[in-house]
Amino acid sequence: MTLGQTFGGFASILEHEVECLDFAAEQFLSINMGATAIGTGICSEPEYADYCTEAMAKITGWKITRTADFVGATSDTSEMIGYSSALKRIAVKVNKICNDLRLLSSGPRCGLGEINLPAMQPGSSIMPGKVNPVIPEVMSQVCYKVIGNDLCVTMAGDASQMELNAMEPVMAQCCFESIDLLINGFDTLRTLCIEGITANEEKCRSYVRESIGIVTALNPIIGYKNSTKIAKEALETGRGVYDLIIEHGILSKEDLDTVLAPENMTHPVRLGIKPLK
Amino acid sequence: MTLGQTFGGFASILEHEVECLDFAAEQFLSINMGATAIGTGICSEPEYADYCTEAMAKITGWKITRTADFVGATSDTSEMIGYSSALKRIAVKVNKICNDLRLLSSGPRCGLGEINLPAMQPGSSIMPGKVNPVIPEVMSQVCYKVIGNDLCVTMAGDASQMELNAMEPVMAQCCFESIDLLINGFDTLRTLCIEGITANEEKCRSYVRESIGIVTALNPIIGYKNSTKIAKEALETGRGVYDLIIEHGILSKEDLDTVLAPENMTHPVRLGIKPLK
Amino acid sequence: MTLGQTFGGFASILEHEVECLDFAAEQFLSINMGATAIGTGICSEPEYADYCTEAMAKITGWKITRTADFVGATSDTSEMIGYSSALKRIAVKVNKICNDLRLLSSGPRCGLGEINLPAMQPGSSIMPGKVNPVIPEVMSQVCYKVIGNDLCVTMAGDASQMELNAMEPVMAQCCFESIDLLINGFDTLRTLCIEGITANEEKCRSYVRESIGIVTALNPIIGYKNSTKIAKEALETGRGVYDLIIEHGILSKEDLDTVLAPENMTHPVRLGIKPLK
Amino acid sequence: MTLGQTFGGFASILEHEVECLDFAAEQFLSINMGATAIGTGICSEPEYADYCTEAMAKITGWKITRTADFVGATSDTSEMIGYSSALKRIAVKVNKICNDLRLLSSGPRCGLGEINLPAMQPGSSIMPGKVNPVIPEVMSQVCYKVIGNDLCVTMAGDASQMELNAMEPVMAQCCFESIDLLINGFDTLRTLCIEGITANEEKCRSYVRESIGIVTALNPIIGYKNSTKIAKEALETGRGVYDLIIEHGILSKEDLDTVLAPENMTHPVRLGIKPLK
Repeated sequence: MTLGQTFGGFASILEHEVECLDFAAEQFLSINMGATAIGTGICSEPEYADYCTEAMAKITGWKITRTADFVGATSDTSEMIGYSSALKRIAVKVNKICNDLRLLSSGPRCGLGEINLPAMQPGSSIMPGKVNPVIPEVMSQVCYKVIGNDLCVTMAGDASQMELNAMEPVMAQCCFESIDLLINGFDTLRTLCIEGITANEEKCRSYVRESIGIVTALNPIIGYKNSTKIAKEALETGRGVYDLIIEHGILSKEDLDTVLAPENMTHPVRLGIKPLK
Repeated sequence: MTLGQTFGGFASILEHEVECLDFAAEQFLSINMGATAIGTGICSEPEYADYCTEAMAKITGWKITRTADFVGATSDTSEMIGYSSALKRIAVKVNKICNDLRLLSSGPRCGLGEINLPAMQPGSSIMPGKVNPVIPEVMSQVCYKVIGNDLCVTMAGDASQMELNAMEPVMAQCCFESIDLLINGFDTLRTLCIEGITANEEKCRSYVRESIGIVTALNPIIGYKNSTKIAKEALETGRGVYDLIIEHGILSKEDLDTVLAPENMTHPVRLGIKPLK
Repeated sequence: MTLGQTFGGFASILEHEVECLDFAAEQFLSINMGATAIGTGICSEPEYADYCTEAMAKITGWKITRTADFVGATSDTSEMIGYSSALKRIAVKVNKICNDLRLLSSGPRCGLGEINLPAMQPGSSIMPGKVNPVIPEVMSQVCYKVIGNDLCVTMAGDASQMELNAMEPVMAQCCFESIDLLINGFDTLRTLCIEGITANEEKCRSYVRESIGIVTALNPIIGYKNSTKIAKEALETGRGVYDLIIEHGILSKEDLDTVLAPENMTHPVRLGIKPLK
Repeated sequence: MTLGQTFGGFASILEHEVECLDFAAEQFLSINMGATAIGTGICSEPEYADYCTEAMAKITGWKITRTADFVGATSDTSEMIGYSSALKRIAVKVNKICNDLRLLSSGPRCGLGEINLPAMQPGSSIMPGKVNPVIPEVMSQVCYKVIGNDLCVTMAGDASQMELNAMEPVMAQCCFESIDLLINGFDTLRTLCIEGITANEEKCRSYVRESIGIVTALNPIIGYKNSTKIAKEALETGRGVYDLIIEHGILSKEDLDTVLAPENMTHPVRLGIKPLK
C-alpha cells in the first residue's frame, strides 16, 4: 500500500467523526426552558415554554425545539454523556493515528523508518542524533485525558437522583476541558508534526523489494500453491520473492514487473497475465 | 408532582434512547467487503466490492452502502465504540430509574415510602416484614457490567495498529454480552417489578399536606416575600403551610384549595386568584 | 443504630485508607537512578546508582532503595497506577459518605431528615426555605473527577512501549490534580459541612418509635414467630410495634423499655429477659 | 541491550505484582462476622464476633482479625475495589509485555523481527508465510476485559448506600471472572507462546552493527562533541558508526571492539580506554 493510502485512511476515519459529533451536538437543541425546578413548569406562565423556545430558535438561528417531556428532561443529562462519548471516539482515533505515526517514524535505523517526523526536540544528552516523536506523544496524552474525562461525565451522569442531577457542573467542566484540549492538541499536531512529515522513499522501496507479502499480489496469477512455495523458500533462504519467481521460471520479468508495479498492487486489478508454467 | 409524571419521565428518557441506538446501529451499515486484508482490495475482482455490497443490501433489505475509504475502514472499529456508548447511555438511565425506585419505595416506615415494589424476597431472618428491592438491585448490577464492558470496548478499540485492529473479538463479545444482559434485565425488571408497583396514596397525600415546598405554588399569587415568611414559620414551628396561610388571612380557604389542587400544582396555570392582603 | 455509629463508620472507613495510601506511596521509594535511558546504566559510572540511592535516602530521610531490575523499572509506571488506584478508593468512599449525608439530610419534611447540614446557599427563588446540600455535591463532583483521572492514568500506563513509557507526564498531572482536588475538597467538606452538622433528634426518635425494624431487637427474646406476627400486624394496621407487644401481653412495659433502650439496641447484649407467654 | 535484559525486565515487573496482590488480598482477612445486618451486632451473642473470628483463623490458618469498626465495615467494599485494582495493574503490565512481543516479532521482513513467536495459526489465505501473533492478541483482549471489569467493580462499590452495599454480587462476579481469565490467559501465553520464543540472532546483530544509537556507548570515551559529529555523519551518509570511528582515527579497531562488545554495552563499565585524538 502507499503512504497516500495510509494518510488517506487517517483522514477518512476522522471525517466520519464530524457526522457523529454533529448528531451528538444536535441533541442539545431539544431544550426544557419553562420546566422550572423539577419539570412541572409550576410558577411559569402557561405560554412561557413555547414563547421562550421560539425566541431562542429565532435568536440563535438553530433548530431549537421544546422537549417532549419536561419531567424526564429535567434530571436527564444524556446529551452530555452522548457528546462526551463522541469526543472520546475522536480521541481513540487520533490516538491510533499518533501511535501509527510513532511506529512508522521509529528509527532512524532499527525501527520501521517509513516516514520522518519534523525534529522538534534536540537529541538527548545520551543519544546524539535521536529525534523523539514528542508531538504525537503530547497528543496521545491529550487523548487519554479526554477518555478519563468521559468516565467522569458518565459517573456524574449516573448520579442523577429523582428530579435533578446535581452533578451537572463537573459534566460541563469535563466536556469543555476535553474540547479545549482537543482543539489545541489538533493545532499542535497539525502545525508541528503532520504538515512537516516526509516520506522515507528509499526505505519504503526497499521494504517492497524485500517483502514476502508481495507474494499476495501474485496469488491470483500464479495460484495459492505456487505462492506458498515461493514464500516459504524466500523465508528460509533469506532471498527475495522477485528473484525466486524469475529463477523458477514462473513469470517473465516483464509480466512480473507489471504485477508488482505500485499502481497494480494497491487496488483491485484484472491484468490478464498468465504464468509460464 | 404526580407519580404519573415521575413514571412518564422514566418512559420518555428511555424512548429517546431508541433514536440514539438506531443512529449507532446505522453506522454498521457502511461495510468494507472487498477491502481484503488491509484495505487495498488486492486480489479481489475489481467489481467484487460493489457487487457484494449490492447483494447484501438486497438480501437483508437494509440500507447497506460501501464505505468511502477501504483503508481507513479496515482498522476502524468506531462503530462498535459508538454502539457500546449507546448501550452505556441506556445503562446509565436505567440505573437512575432503579435507584429512584429504591428510594421511592424505601421503608416501610422510616424511608420515603411513596410506592410499593412487589415483594420478591421473603423477609430476612433478622428483619421480619422487610421487603428488599432485589429486582432494581439486580438491574443496577447489570448496568454496571454494561458500563464496564464499554470501557473494555474503548480500550480494545484504542489498540488499533496500522492496518488492523486485532482486538475486535473482545469488542464484539462485550457488545453482545451487554445486549443480552440488558434484554434479560429489562424483562426481569418489567415483569417482576415495574408491572406490580403500587402507589402508597396515603403517604403521598400526607407529604403534600406536610410539605413546605407547596409554598412554591403560592409564590405567583401571594408573592415571594410572603412565601418566604410562611415557609420559615412553618419550618420553625413544625406547623403546616396550609394552616398558616389561613391563619394569617392571606388567602380564603376556597382559593387556597384551588391553588393546591393537584391538577393546578403539577402544570403551569393561570388561576386569576388574588391574596386577601 | 445511633448517629454516632453512622459517623464513626464514616471515620473508620477513611482511617483504613491511610494504610493503603501509605503502601501505595512506599512503592515510589524504589528508584532507578543510574538506569540511564533504557535501564542498562550505560555511560554511568559503575558506582553511580548505589551512591545516588544512598545519597537520596540520606537527604530525604526516606527508606529509598535501588530497584532490583533497572530495565523493568525504566518503562514501568505501575507505582503511579497503584497510587492513583489508592486515590480512587478514597474518592469512592468519600462519595459514599457525601451521598449518605444528602440522603440523611433530605427534607425538610418529605425526606429522611435525620440530620441538618449547615445552610450554605440561600433558598432558591422558587422554593423559599429550601437548603441545598451544595457542599457534599461539590465533593462528589471532585470524586468523579478523581475517578476519571484514574482511568487516564491507567490508559497512559497501558501505553508503555519497549524500554520507555512516553506518557508519564499526563500520569503525573492526573495524580497531582487529584491530590489537589481531594485536599481542597476535604477542607471544604470539613469546615463548611461536617463540623456544622446537627442531629434532628425529634425526627430520629420518632423513627425509632414508628419503626417496624425494632422488632429485630425483640427477636432473641420473643422468638422469630412472634416477631414476624407483630411485624405483619404493625404493617397492616399502621400501628406501632411497641403498643402491639404490650397489647398482646408478650412483654411487660418495663422489660420492653429495657429491650428498646438505645444502649441495648445498638450493640450485642444479653439481657436475660423472658417473654410473658 | 540484550534480549535477556528485555525478558528479565518482563519477569521483574511481574514479580513485583505478587507483593501488591498479596497486600490487596490481606485486606480481606479483616472480617466483620458478628456485625449482623447493619453493623450493630444486634441479636448476636456478645461473644460471638470474637469466637467466630478466632475459629475462622484457626480453621483456615490465615491471620484473620476482627475489623475495628463493624458499622463502617458492613457497607464497605473497598477490599474488592483494591483487589480489582491490583488485578488491573497486572493486566496493564501483561498487556504491555504482549504489545512488546508483537512489535519485537513483527515481520518476517518489514517489521522489527528481533524474535520469533511460535507459529500458532497457519498463514492466511491471502498471505502465505505470514504468522500472526494470535496468542499475545488473545492475552491483550483478556487484559482489556479485566480493566473493564475493574470499572464495573468501582461503580458498584461507589453505589454503597447507608448501612449496606447491595451491589456486592457483581463485584465478586467481576473479581472471579478476572481471576479466571488471567489464570487461563497466563497458562495459554506461557505454554503456547513464551516458552517457544526464539531469538532472531542475525537480525539483532545487524541492528547493533547498523545502529546509530551505539554512539552512546562511545560518549564517555570520545566525548559528546565527537559522538554528535559521528552520529550526524552516519545519518546523512547512510554509513555505519563503526566504520566512521575507524576512518576518522578516533579509536583503534581493538579499542572500538572492546567498547562495543555486548558485555560492555549492556551495563555500566569503566574501561580505561582513551581516544587517539
